[in-house]
Amino acid sequence: MEPRNLLRFLFLSFSLALVLILTWFQLPDQPNKADLLDCNDNSQLCIFKNRFHLLKKPPFPTRRRQHELDTPHHPLDPLTIQELNTVRTILSSQALFKSSSGYALHSLVLQEPEKRLVVNWKKGDPLLPRKASVIARANGISHVLTVDLANHQVTVQETGSFSGYPIMTLEDMITATGAPLADADFNSTILQRGVDLTDLACLPISSGWYGKSEENRRLIKVQCYSTKGTANFYMRPIEGLTVLVDLDTKEVVEISDKGSNIPLPKAANTDYRYSSIQKHNQELRLINPISIEQPKGPSFTIEDDHLVKWANWEFHLKADPRAGIIISQAKVRDPDSGELRNVLYKGFASELFVPYMDPTDAWYFKTYMDAGEYGFGLQSMSLDPLNDCPRNAYYMDGVFSAANGTPYVRSNMICVFESYTGDVSWRHTECPITGMEVKEARPKVTLVVRMAASVANYDYIVDWEFQTDGLIKIKVGLSGILMVKATSFDNMNQVGNQESLYGTLLSENVIGVIHDHYITFHLDMDIDGSNNSFVNVNIKKQQTAPGESPRRSYLKAVRNVAKTEKDAQVKLKLYDPSEFHVINPSKKTRVGNPVGYKVVPGGTAASLLDLEDPPQKRGAFTNNQIWVTPYNRSEQWAGGLFVYQSKGEDTLAVWSNRDRPIENKDIVLWYTLGFHHIPCQEDFPIMPTVTSSFDLKPVNFFESNPILRIPPNFESDLPVCKPAASV
Amino acid sequence: MEPRNLLRFLFLSFSLALVLILTWFQLPDQPNKADLLDCNDNSQLCIFKNRFHLLKKPPFPTRRRQHELDTPHHPLDPLTIQELNTVRTILSSQALFKSSSGYALHSLVLQEPEKRLVVNWKKGDPLLPRKASVIARANGISHVLTVDLANHQVTVQETGSFSGYPIMTLEDMITATGAPLADADFNSTILQRGVDLTDLACLPISSGWYGKSEENRRLIKVQCYSTKGTANFYMRPIEGLTVLVDLDTKEVVEISDKGSNIPLPKAANTDYRYSSIQKHNQELRLINPISIEQPKGPSFTIEDDHLVKWANWEFHLKADPRAGIIISQAKVRDPDSGELRNVLYKGFASELFVPYMDPTDAWYFKTYMDAGEYGFGLQSMSLDPLNDCPRNAYYMDGVFSAANGTPYVRSNMICVFESYTGDVSWRHTECPITGMEVKEARPKVTLVVRMAASVANYDYIVDWEFQTDGLIKIKVGLSGILMVKATSFDNMNQVGNQESLYGTLLSENVIGVIHDHYITFHLDMDIDGSNNSFVNVNIKKQQTAPGESPRRSYLKAVRNVAKTEKDAQVKLKLYDPSEFHVINPSKKTRVGNPVGYKVVPGGTAASLLDLEDPPQKRGAFTNNQIWVTPYNRSEQWAGGLFVYQSKGEDTLAVWSNRDRPIENKDIVLWYTLGFHHIPCQEDFPIMPTVTSSFDLKPVNFFESNPILRIPPNFESDLPVCKPAASV
Repeated sequence: MEPRNLLRFLFLSFSLALVLILTWFQLPDQPNKADLLDCNDNSQLCIFKNRFHLLKKPPFPTRRRQHELDTPHHPLDPLTIQELNTVRTILSSQALFKSSSGYALHSLVLQEPEKRLVVNWKKGDPLLPRKASVIARANGISHVLTVDLANHQVTVQETGSFSGYPIMTLEDMITATGAPLADADFNSTILQRGVDLTDLACLPISSGWYGKSEENRRLIKVQCYSTKGTANFYMRPIEGLTVLVDLDTKEVVEISDKGSNIPLPKAANTDYRYSSIQKHNQELRLINPISIEQPKGPSFTIEDDHLVKWANWEFHLKADPRAGIIISQAKVRDPDSGELRNVLYKGFASELFVPYMDPTDAWYFKTYMDAGEYGFGLQSMSLDPLNDCPRNAYYMDGVFSAANGTPYVRSNMICVFESYTGDVSWRHTECPITGMEVKEARPKVTLVVRMAASVANYDYIVDWEFQTDGLIKIKVGLSGILMVKATSFDNMNQVGNQESLYGTLLSENVIGVIHDHYITFHLDMDIDGSNNSFVNVNIKKQQTAPGESPRRSYLKAVRNVAKTEKDAQVKLKLYDPSEFHVINPSKKTRVGNPVGYKVVPGGTAASLLDLEDPPQKRGAFTNNQIWVTPYNRSEQWAGGLFVYQSKGEDTLAVWSNRDRPIENKDIVLWYTLGFHHIPCQEDFPIMPTVTSSFDLKPVNFFESNPILRIPPNFESDLPVCKPAASV
Repeated sequence: MEPRNLLRFLFLSFSLALVLILTWFQLPDQPNKADLLDCNDNSQLCIFKNRFHLLKKPPFPTRRRQHELDTPHHPLDPLTIQELNTVRTILSSQALFKSSSGYALHSLVLQEPEKRLVVNWKKGDPLLPRKASVIARANGISHVLTVDLANHQVTVQETGSFSGYPIMTLEDMITATGAPLADADFNSTILQRGVDLTDLACLPISSGWYGKSEENRRLIKVQCYSTKGTANFYMRPIEGLTVLVDLDTKEVVEISDKGSNIPLPKAANTDYRYSSIQKHNQELRLINPISIEQPKGPSFTIEDDHLVKWANWEFHLKADPRAGIIISQAKVRDPDSGELRNVLYKGFASELFVPYMDPTDAWYFKTYMDAGEYGFGLQSMSLDPLNDCPRNAYYMDGVFSAANGTPYVRSNMICVFESYTGDVSWRHTECPITGMEVKEARPKVTLVVRMAASVANYDYIVDWEFQTDGLIKIKVGLSGILMVKATSFDNMNQVGNQESLYGTLLSENVIGVIHDHYITFHLDMDIDGSNNSFVNVNIKKQQTAPGESPRRSYLKAVRNVAKTEKDAQVKLKLYDPSEFHVINPSKKTRVGNPVGYKVVPGGTAASLLDLEDPPQKRGAFTNNQIWVTPYNRSEQWAGGLFVYQSKGEDTLAVWSNRDRPIENKDIVLWYTLGFHHIPCQEDFPIMPTVTSSFDLKPVNFFESNPILRIPPNFESDLPVCKPAASV
């Protein structure tokens, strides 16, 4: 074949492959009886099957993995397959969706009923009217609609006239990455770089907003990699080549190539798959098998598919295409009264902000907002049983909608399990000083709810961990693969003192670029009811008066109740520390302290970008670590409802600057977890997990230690185990 | 009986009891064959016995719990019983120890050989000469001696002429608490407060140093509690009563009583013992049994009683009366070369500082330095198997010396176990964007070394957690019982706005006083050898030049190598962040980065007391979170060798201010973990564990991810378990 014909052949093959992929994605993961019994795809079921003989009864009621028959039981249950199909039917009769240019559903989820109604709803009550919230694009315009499933009425929601576009559909991302192949210049550039088109993998990179050129059309930047010799193509960037694509027309708008002299990094030692390691006899076995075992089964149940009941906790759990996991109506049982008490009405990862620290042409725009641009839930893949979660995990599926409204199932998207690290929930031993014989310790067992989003290269593991002492730990682990930059350097001795690599040389010709990660959580606290206040308990140095004490100084706690939002814009300060309480001012403990929970920051990082830098304007919700807003149903997404290419007019920072009253009101707490990441060689070719977390912790919520009365472990309670091979 | 006779009777009974206790403590825990086979005292052995039938061979070689026959195998092995007895024999022939007034050994431990010799020593080499380091008091003078066990030579060590006294002996603490009973005024005060002398429990509270009155004699303050109706006497303080006692003469120097109007808090709901909960049928069972199981046994061995070998790690572990745990010569195996590489020559908790925030008469002096005053190891009690550590734990004993030189064994003082939380050591899933079928995740298993010190009321759980990716996490958990203050208030509505409680009303008449905890770790890093440098990798905002980029700003890493100690006095700054690397400037990776480890701070707190406040002068090692000093064998204890009543002339802050060169030298890193603790009702009557930690993490130490090649879990590797009851 002539080169020209080869090119044509390759392009046609690729287009065919693309069409096949697209077709597959129109009907992704359609549940199918045969599939559901296949252990390769659904090994979770098989695990439980293996364990059933150990148990008198299965740990969970036999689950309907056939989601076609799902029905909602709780006002917050996600839309079922039947309901999603109903919505599609209703929409298809609307004039708007009959346009010849077609339409795309960018979001189709339950429109949660009014909070007041949900709070008053009890099991056994008739279900509240079911509605869908739809974000659709048709004729180049974004529409936000409410669809009433009972009366089939469609109403338009007012959203204000902000810049920005809805979350991308998976179809947007896939078509964007295929678009450059229609461009002959692009194809010849790829060949000039020494990459076969069959080895090409491209990523859709959100363009952000930097001015006029990112306004009035949906744009995306496509960058490509070579998959030759490795599954870890991320380590083989075709550096400096950026293709600007119109997301609606699929046109190539512009190709920028500033990296033609930069070599393609090698494939050697980049593949991380076990199959590849095995093939090369490189396996490194360091540890004997280890497992968390519960001989009497788990201590939790999941009622009606979504209501988790564990130890002294109860909460509603669902998958969400944008947030990933939504925890609702978390309540903890008071050990004295036996009553379930409200803690958190709704908690979820509202937005992420991931700015890379390289101002050059092919990198400056990399300032991702993963939830609002890509969908934190859409990018959450099925978890790997035994490795993403321990053997004793229970799995929950996500039911989402494709761009054309077809429902699909993301199986095993969430896992729920009990964890026991060997840690101690409380202890005390008397020491020889008193000579008393006391030794008391209690094991610490927690319940973990987990998802893992793979937003292209990066993996975010999000855990909601519930403790019996009332604490909720929200933990984010970062793993996956670095976004790297190719370079002509293969050793640091070639790099001049004044030269900036914007990162670390990780391997020959590979730089790990410095970046930050921010994850902002929406935490609608309802401490024993909706009307709460935010209190900054400031720890202040107090000098003693002359003669008052041999001490010159001590620390004093000064309580400041926030009146309005600006009082609750908190930048953490190590040398002017505070505790941050959400209290119910109307409810006091027996000795008169207001009941509350505090947010306890863990290791954290603050965004240091210029406040006027366009990415920081869009990511302005990271300007403080803590914010408190009055509850407003429309203020769910910290970066705004329409984040894609937005200018940042609809962020949490804008809302908070309205400075509304927040004292003794229904309030929402926002907390941002931050990470600075200077890559190191250990992050190559795949990163060991780095974790950070924060806690929601009871503070005078209970009258006393709520787990005072739990028993210790006894040998006779624990299982007798044999190596599997010996059975 | 007349009241006067009753008093005399009680006093005599108590004195008799005291003599019995003291006698018992002269020979504490003398190992005895019968004891060691008793499951009640040594249930750890029994656990392993129970498990042996599951395993082809015992998980560990049968251990010599009869420590009388122990012999040292490694230059850093602690003194054995035989060696301790030899030291006692040698000392008893010295004139100094023949004084009629007697003597007390405040410390008797191995004098570690010179670092250079230890580093060069290899298994099979003759053991280095064994020496003991002794701190003794005789004739009112403190002596620091070196005893050569081979030639029986005793030499005096130069220590400088600093204020302060050695660590208290357990006998000091016990005699101090008995001393007030010799005072009739004290006894009548106790009776006036409505407390029977038989119900009295007293605590020895280090006096600190505040000026002339704490100079030239060893002093302690004794405060007392009622044990009536509860094992948790800490909740029943006889408030405001402080007895100043001379530690050497056992005289009562002064009694201060400022609390006669303050009621004794009630005993109700304070007892936390399971036996007490059971008696009242109050048990709260929330969780089914759960256990970490290793069907093929642990993945570690302990050679020669002290050399721990696990996965890719090897380190020397021993108990120490002052530090608790000492980790030495921690080395990690390079996955490429297979060689063991040095990371940490020596790591331990060097000092604690726990200032309470109440300047009043009975509280101002409570500014504990638990390691140097009480002995962090001396206060580490035997761990409770199954509850302080999981079932798969291995236990190690401490062998210490009593004040008269008699060796004794603290059994099960340290536990070592593998932990598996269900967490992920690394993962990546390909998402629909690329359409590739990749799902890889690896379970995370760690090795934990744990001790728990009960310094009277408070419990500190110290974990050294080793990860296969080269990270060491140093974690401190706080549990145990608050030091509380009695008050006449039983509800916050009685407390005026201007009134300071110095804490939180936890229950009727009980205030939890605000306090801080600081734990300063000595970390003698040896990254691939002793000569290292400390690098502050500062993350700085960089503005772009006009026209350079659509971005206005980005973050840049700027490396600053510390030349002298003052360059390495680090106050953490959230808004001017840095990474803190210890590198080996002479060793580079393949691509030319210097090999290193970084210290990664976790949640932290800074001491905010006035720098001129006497407690802060003594605790000046908390003035920065990070310090780096050149290695100096005598600089082990951050608060000074003689901490008790010291003025702070010999602290880490003083050493560091000498500003010695530290570039490319053998250096020691010091890190302080901090906690502010405003008590809350959940801390009553016993505190749920609060944890903080920091990490030592490889940074360009390995050429790439060192655990790339570990296998995932497979179902066939995991155990088959049955409930114990069904066997």
